[in-house]
Amino acid sequence: MIRTFTSEQFIETFIRSKNKAKSLSDDTLKIAKQVIDQIRLQGESALKEYVQKFEGYLPLNWEVTDEERKQAWSKVDVETITSLQKAADNIKKFHSKQIQQSKIMELTEDIIAGQLYRPIERVGIYVPGGTACYPSTVLMNAIPAVLAGVSEVIMTTPVREEDSIAPILSVAADISGVNKIYKIGGIQAIAALAYGTEQIAPVDKIVGPGNKYVAAAKSLVFGDVGIDMIAGPSEVAIIADETANPKYVAADLIAQAEHDENARTFLLTTSEKLINETKIEIVKQCEKLPRATIAKKSLSTQSASVRVSKIDFAFDLVNKLAPEHVEIQLENPLSYLSKVKNAGSIFLGSYTPEAIGDYFGGPNHVLPTSGTARFSSGLSVDDFMKKTTYLYYSEKALCDAAPHVVNIASEEKLIGHTRAVQVRLGKD
Amino acid sequence: MIRTFTSEQFIETFIRSKNKAKSLSDDTLKIAKQVIDQIRLQGESALKEYVQKFEGYLPLNWEVTDEERKQAWSKVDVETITSLQKAADNIKKFHSKQIQQSKIMELTEDIIAGQLYRPIERVGIYVPGGTACYPSTVLMNAIPAVLAGVSEVIMTTPVREEDSIAPILSVAADISGVNKIYKIGGIQAIAALAYGTEQIAPVDKIVGPGNKYVAAAKSLVFGDVGIDMIAGPSEVAIIADETANPKYVAADLIAQAEHDENARTFLLTTSEKLINETKIEIVKQCEKLPRATIAKKSLSTQSASVRVSKIDFAFDLVNKLAPEHVEIQLENPLSYLSKVKNAGSIFLGSYTPEAIGDYFGGPNHVLPTSGTARFSSGLSVDDFMKKTTYLYYSEKALCDAAPHVVNIASEEKLIGHTRAVQVRLGKD
Repeated sequence: MIRTFTSEQFIETFIRSKNKAKSLSDDTLKIAKQVIDQIRLQGESALKEYVQKFEGYLPLNWEVTDEERKQAWSKVDVETITSLQKAADNIKKFHSKQIQQSKIMELTEDIIAGQLYRPIERVGIYVPGGTACYPSTVLMNAIPAVLAGVSEVIMTTPVREEDSIAPILSVAADISGVNKIYKIGGIQAIAALAYGTEQIAPVDKIVGPGNKYVAAAKSLVFGDVGIDMIAGPSEVAIIADETANPKYVAADLIAQAEHDENARTFLLTTSEKLINETKIEIVKQCEKLPRATIAKKSLSTQSASVRVSKIDFAFDLVNKLAPEHVEIQLENPLSYLSKVKNAGSIFLGSYTPEAIGDYFGGPNHVLPTSGTARFSSGLSVDDFMKKTTYLYYSEKALCDAAPHVVNIASEEKLIGHTRAVQVRLGKD
Repeated sequence: MIRTFTSEQFIETFIRSKNKAKSLSDDTLKIAKQVIDQIRLQGESALKEYVQKFEGYLPLNWEVTDEERKQAWSKVDVETITSLQKAADNIKKFHSKQIQQSKIMELTEDIIAGQLYRPIERVGIYVPGGTACYPSTVLMNAIPAVLAGVSEVIMTTPVREEDSIAPILSVAADISGVNKIYKIGGIQAIAALAYGTEQIAPVDKIVGPGNKYVAAAKSLVFGDVGIDMIAGPSEVAIIADETANPKYVAADLIAQAEHDENARTFLLTTSEKLINETKIEIVKQCEKLPRATIAKKSLSTQSASVRVSKIDFAFDLVNKLAPEHVEIQLENPLSYLSKVKNAGSIFLGSYTPEAIGDYFGGPNHVLPTSGTARFSSGLSVDDFMKKTTYLYYSEKALCDAAPHVVNIASEEKLIGHTRAVQVRLGKD
């Protein structure tokens, strides 16, 4: 089912495609805009109307109470709670090393210059809550925000029957340190977080995944609040040679493909044999897979195996592709680390399936897709911080700098700027 | 001319305005989209057509030659060159302290986890070249990119008569370490940098200011390449008390206002006297200002003075506003630094006019506007770097982690993910 391409075909089909589909349709954007405008201008009354309309149920209160959060713990089995706690520990450990300090760049009697590194004040995290629910989303988005020192981390997720949210999401929120949980989903949740209502205070930034309406809403509120990236389909590129185990390769391609019909999975290898054996394994392993229909669609339409004559050429293709995930299933995998120039996250060796990183290992699973790893990075503590620079000049420092500022400002024909310096030196 | 508001009026008018104008009109976006699509699909022939059409002149070559770059030095006066070099030194000194290192988060026999911090490979810098030309734009955008270690820093600016670009921009590019300069402006420059043509290799990220067409083009190519923020009108908020000199305050408000009719300038003070004297000074200083018409329009329509009963209230207003620039014209200005929570850059004391930061001091002058300092930061070395995480697990580490990954993946109903772990442990 996974098709084999030459390198040239692969580049043409998956990298250089000049007729990319637009990720958000005009219709989706139009609906999102209408809902956002109403909630922005009318507040609570419009929010209630849209929650009732789109979610079919109006919760008694927006916020999940302390009592409800406490009760959720008894509704999740103990082993799962332990696993979430262990995952959270690993994620905290990894992300805590990302925290930077404020810096002083210059400190003399006459000049002080520096850069403050401080948390964003209020952050909203959108967590989908449809048929499946994803506690890992809560951990991966909330933990870096809490570590950053964000004053208020607010999660929002659709209300379900009986005025509840999924208990495991509530438990994951507690484990992560989320301050408030709202029972609101969809466009209306993004609008309420971005602009606030009589009962909901607005946030400064919104992160987290969602369906096309949520993505459209985030793209529309961007600028008024910060957002994370609008994610494209998930991707993995596996670089392997004849030493790789086709069972493992197939399992990892399938794990990626089961996410979404549009997920993209690639095997780049020097071994024709590995390609053939992996294809056989894929068929075998798909037989027992609950989400086989989705995986097969992805594998047959959005995937490729490519045979390269030298393993370095596989790295060249990966660097052009800049995929979300790269697996290196080669011997001495660490020695290849620096060959990957563009990727969201790298998984090294035969015993590091991407699934470890999705849930447990520590690095974030919110990663750049669709080639954006060329210029952007996975979610980190930095995404919840902001840098503010500052400068102090003494009268003497200003006096020394004055002729240069005047020269450059004059060149730019901004005479008001030259005056702002000269007036202080009694020259104007 | 600058109007006085109460705190409540100020918040309503300048912070909480719910009817914000769209920054880019549909017409502008439509024109930009058409040009971009043509150049993306047809390459060089479309680029030539649009350069001829919009710039009225087709340069002999896109790239400024080494010889032309050399000759430019003789066309700029020596004092200005010296001033640019001094400014560049300060900017380099400040930004070099922003460079981070790759990190190892965990290193045991069984688990290796870390984060690579590496430069973006190719960066384009747009530099406007209309009536005025801004060498400071070159310095502020190119120096952090060069410090980051970007392999190729490419500047593009509109061609002028006689197949030339402004000599001072060429000199500033040399001083900053720009690798290539193209004689292309407008939408067509953004399209050529984003998608490449037969003669121009595409870049990974585009930064730099421009008119509404350039801004629209950047917003449209975003996702295919990275961009910096689309800047709104420039802003300054001056916090001052009765110790401040109304001449300095007026000069700084005017320097901001002369940029643009839409520039926003605010004086927040405990002193009624300072407001009154500043207004008188503004009238006086505007008399001799070449760009008085622009400054007066900004000061009369986009500006405010606010009297507060306590200086802390001025900081509250500034934190709600999150302006691009804040000046603190108070005694012991450093003691107030931590009170500013949301701002692009802070200027401390009576002898640190914003003009110092615009050109010379060292901090970047590309800063978040329109309240976006709540969640974003000025341009820095980080904007030219990307972070890539990696993870290595041994067989033993995978074995220990397996039950937890299986628990969480099962909860999320992603059975392919559980299999990717179990197949490696012979359990599937």
